[in-house]
Amino acid sequence: MISLLDILKRIDDGSLTPAGAIAQALEAVTLAEPAIGAFTHIDAAAAAPVSAGPLRGVAIGVKDIIDVAGMPTRMGSPIYDDSTARADAAIVALARRSGATILGKTTTTPFAFLDPTSTRNPHDHSYSPGGSSAGSAAAVGAGMVPLAIGTQTGGSVIRPASYCGVAAVKPSFRILPTVGVKCYSWSLDTPGLFAATIADVAYALAALSQRAELRLPGDEGQESGADLRIGVLTQGFAGPPEDDAAAAVDAAIKAIEARGARVIPVIEAPELAVAFDAHGTVQDFEVAQALAWEYDNHRDALPPILRQALDEAQHIPVEEYDAARRAASRARKAWAQMAEHFDAALTFSSPGAAPASLSTTGNSRFNRLWTLVGAPCVNIPGFLNAAGMPVGVQIVARFGRDDKALRAAAFVEKALRAPL
Amino acid sequence: MISLLDILKRIDDGSLTPAGAIAQALEAVTLAEPAIGAFTHIDAAAAAPVSAGPLRGVAIGVKDIIDVAGMPTRMGSPIYDDSTARADAAIVALARRSGATILGKTTTTPFAFLDPTSTRNPHDHSYSPGGSSAGSAAAVGAGMVPLAIGTQTGGSVIRPASYCGVAAVKPSFRILPTVGVKCYSWSLDTPGLFAATIADVAYALAALSQRAELRLPGDEGQESGADLRIGVLTQGFAGPPEDDAAAAVDAAIKAIEARGARVIPVIEAPELAVAFDAHGTVQDFEVAQALAWEYDNHRDALPPILRQALDEAQHIPVEEYDAARRAASRARKAWAQMAEHFDAALTFSSPGAAPASLSTTGNSRFNRLWTLVGAPCVNIPGFLNAAGMPVGVQIVARFGRDDKALRAAAFVEKALRAPL
Repeated sequence: MISLLDILKRIDDGSLTPAGAIAQALEAVTLAEPAIGAFTHIDAAAAAPVSAGPLRGVAIGVKDIIDVAGMPTRMGSPIYDDSTARADAAIVALARRSGATILGKTTTTPFAFLDPTSTRNPHDHSYSPGGSSAGSAAAVGAGMVPLAIGTQTGGSVIRPASYCGVAAVKPSFRILPTVGVKCYSWSLDTPGLFAATIADVAYALAALSQRAELRLPGDEGQESGADLRIGVLTQGFAGPPEDDAAAAVDAAIKAIEARGARVIPVIEAPELAVAFDAHGTVQDFEVAQALAWEYDNHRDALPPILRQALDEAQHIPVEEYDAARRAASRARKAWAQMAEHFDAALTFSSPGAAPASLSTTGNSRFNRLWTLVGAPCVNIPGFLNAAGMPVGVQIVARFGRDDKALRAAAFVEKALRAPL
Repeated sequence: MISLLDILKRIDDGSLTPAGAIAQALEAVTLAEPAIGAFTHIDAAAAAPVSAGPLRGVAIGVKDIIDVAGMPTRMGSPIYDDSTARADAAIVALARRSGATILGKTTTTPFAFLDPTSTRNPHDHSYSPGGSSAGSAAAVGAGMVPLAIGTQTGGSVIRPASYCGVAAVKPSFRILPTVGVKCYSWSLDTPGLFAATIADVAYALAALSQRAELRLPGDEGQESGADLRIGVLTQGFAGPPEDDAAAAVDAAIKAIEARGARVIPVIEAPELAVAFDAHGTVQDFEVAQALAWEYDNHRDALPPILRQALDEAQHIPVEEYDAARRAASRARKAWAQMAEHFDAALTFSSPGAAPASLSTTGNSRFNRLWTLVGAPCVNIPGFLNAAGMPVGVQIVARFGRDDKALRAAAFVEKALRAPL
């Protein structure tokens, strides 16, 4: 993988120009793309637009439900085959303001739901990269681009990051804008970022959200992390993890304790389990409206999993939706209270390693609740299972405390790397 | 004006067909449009698509920041001059599902901000129709269509309704979807409906939101309203009203009391004043992102008031935005507590009657707070000032209690009509 902070360091010390960094990314894409299939559109003429800004020389892949002016937005669906975006989505315009270069569009499952893409996992091409932000995770994991933008409605950022072994952040709800992003569920859709390291995603999130405090201190000034209190969440309401994911969290706990931070078992408030069950109702009720035009006019062109979900979503009573939203609201309050007892909490990023198949994108059950409550989530790569496939661990924190989530995640990342 | 419930009654009794109702609306548009200029696009071939559904035979005008498949979405700006929408916005798709016919697109101020349109007030062509949903209010007020869709970010539904003498509802935040609506501020943008009477807007809102309980009982079964407790809000934080608006509210209070309902003066919690001041910060911080592409690529093509607002909006610190959002959250709670003491509250819809000029759209100071707290708002027409120009009064209620707002508004509407 290419670290964007490494690129910036080399630009600063004069050993690389922004233009050179973009050319290198284009070359990496040319080499790796045939085997991975992470892109739906590549701007072969991409060049560094400016040599200033916090993301100068950073090539970005943008999930293909997010508009980039002049490029097609295909939504992973033939319904939008010949559709070119007039304007940039807000997050893309913000990336350009920061000096970044949009290298191309990355694959998405159709409308960011569950029908798989043809993208392959960079660690083993017969494995799924996850979804729905498949191309963004795979493009970073394969070392093609140092930064990619995706979105999460259930687990579409953290899950593919776990499967592809990349760092990712799904920040607090609405600190990154969704304007110009195809909507699936307006209460849930959240943009997220993929990069090589936690410090990389923190740096990019700070730039795009205008929140400088999210940057992590450099290694020089970095605290030991021994003051951190890290909760452990089993998410019992989501069912048990597979052995791989359990082993990843166990390894993280041991590494955290070995470096002196406190690990605190967390009793999960009953409101969380109720909200976990409510996620699907919120998502389905909203997508029945969000994709009403596609469903009413192009139902036959929809892929099977999405079509069936939409068939069923047409009949959710509005009272169930209102009750689900109230459950989400209660869970937000319960989570805020729980989170007073720790800085951030450790849990599973995905049920296990990537499925050994391209016909499924895996399961979002360890991600959905956090999307619904709008909490910041970070995937930490580093753990490999016996077959050498990555399995991430997830850090979650209280709404609005992306700083705590990122700092704890950086600590865990470092701890996992150190020999025990 | 054309009442949509009257149309439906005539369709039910066989004296009108849905196709005939659409043809009548097209004829009304042909006659009135040259003097009013409410439309940016008219579907001259519009026909009733079906003869079933709650909105069968109802011709709708749709504000030109809302996508209608196959029609241009010009946003009131030359930047989007040649842009045809591929898909329907969710609210448009829902309207079609209900059997409605989209007759055309109605004028909007550029990107729904403050630079005026060329639309004229149907009551006097030298007066402003208000904004930003100018065409939607004027098209209903001029009797061209029985229903129109607009949006409100500050006061863009209730204000033009007040000026044009039409009924309107800005429902609770997010009970009507904004998917496919050009975003100005994602925390504020709220679709709203214009029609001839409160029963009309209630009926249409019930159909589009799938909330049947919002329909008002027919005259037969209607309660007297004598059980209603109606608060009176002066909105002191927003400055004093002009004489016309004060007279309209006074007339409403007298009419309410004459029909036996209780009028309760309301002490405004200090949180409301703080949130009122915070509205601009939320709006400006978000539009700086929402219109980032337009600002970065087409600043010179932006009209002067919007351009200046965007110039200033580029420099709002994120901490100010976060503080403004917290102020809004506190005001939501304070308003919910205040609203326990009455069913709904009466206040000014606009500072006065429409400005006698086409160079301003008026002022949203009596609307902004309610948009920010997401409360349902209803404009009740019926009062005319000495010059014969309409001035509405506004009913607001607690978030989620659109039923109470509409029932109280229907009572006030009836009371204002009755001789004292």
